[in-house]
Amino acid sequence: MTSTPAPPYLAVIFTNRRAGWGESDVDAAYGAAAQRMEELARTIPGYMGIESARSDDGVGITVSYWETEDAIAEWRGHPEHLDVQASGRADWYEWCELRVAPVERAASFP
Amino acid sequence: MTSTPAPPYLAVIFTNRRAGWGESDVDAAYGAAAQRMEELARTIPGYMGIESARSDDGVGITVSYWETEDAIAEWRGHPEHLDVQASGRADWYEWCELRVAPVERAASFP
Repeated sequence: MTSTPAPPYLAVIFTNRRAGWGESDVDAAYGAAAQRMEELARTIPGYMGIESARSDDGVGITVSYWETEDAIAEWRGHPEHLDVQASGRADWYEWCELRVAPVERAASFP
Repeated sequence: MTSTPAPPYLAVIFTNRRAGWGESDVDAAYGAAAQRMEELARTIPGYMGIESARSDDGVGITVSYWETEDAIAEWRGHPEHLDVQASGRADWYEWCELRVAPVERAASFP
């Protein structure tokens, strides 16, 4: 669970289906890149957290949270992230969609 | 993949961790309720689609898409949905968080 303060803040919703899902070498390379990207995102000022889930069929959703549009822009344009984005399009995703949405309200339980 | 038109539209981001995860009777009841809720949501005017993923550790993310706040309000207040929301808090989630966010921009691949 990612603890976020009261809105407003920004959500980046990334939905996708993995290509090469279940191929151990592809999965390993993907896992390493995903872990590295999470470490890298944490270094961007304005990064607030990330939540991620992937089902057995290879469909995944990752939501990251950001304080400002500038923070998202810095993350989007980070050279190492740009390389991984290219790999994603070339090798790792059958399809993916990215949506940027300012969170207006939130409620949690318990 | 949920095909959505160009923004603006609204995203409801529901992140959670299942309670009773891996207990077959709980999982079966949850699965049946989740399927029924998806059928029910489709009947609400302004419903646009849903995407969902759950990892092996029981962490799940569901994002549903809506044309208007009124549509979300109707969905939120549907009597059958209210019953299931109560079951969720009582039995099905260790924790959950709901965020409402208007999608401002989107990009998809391929």
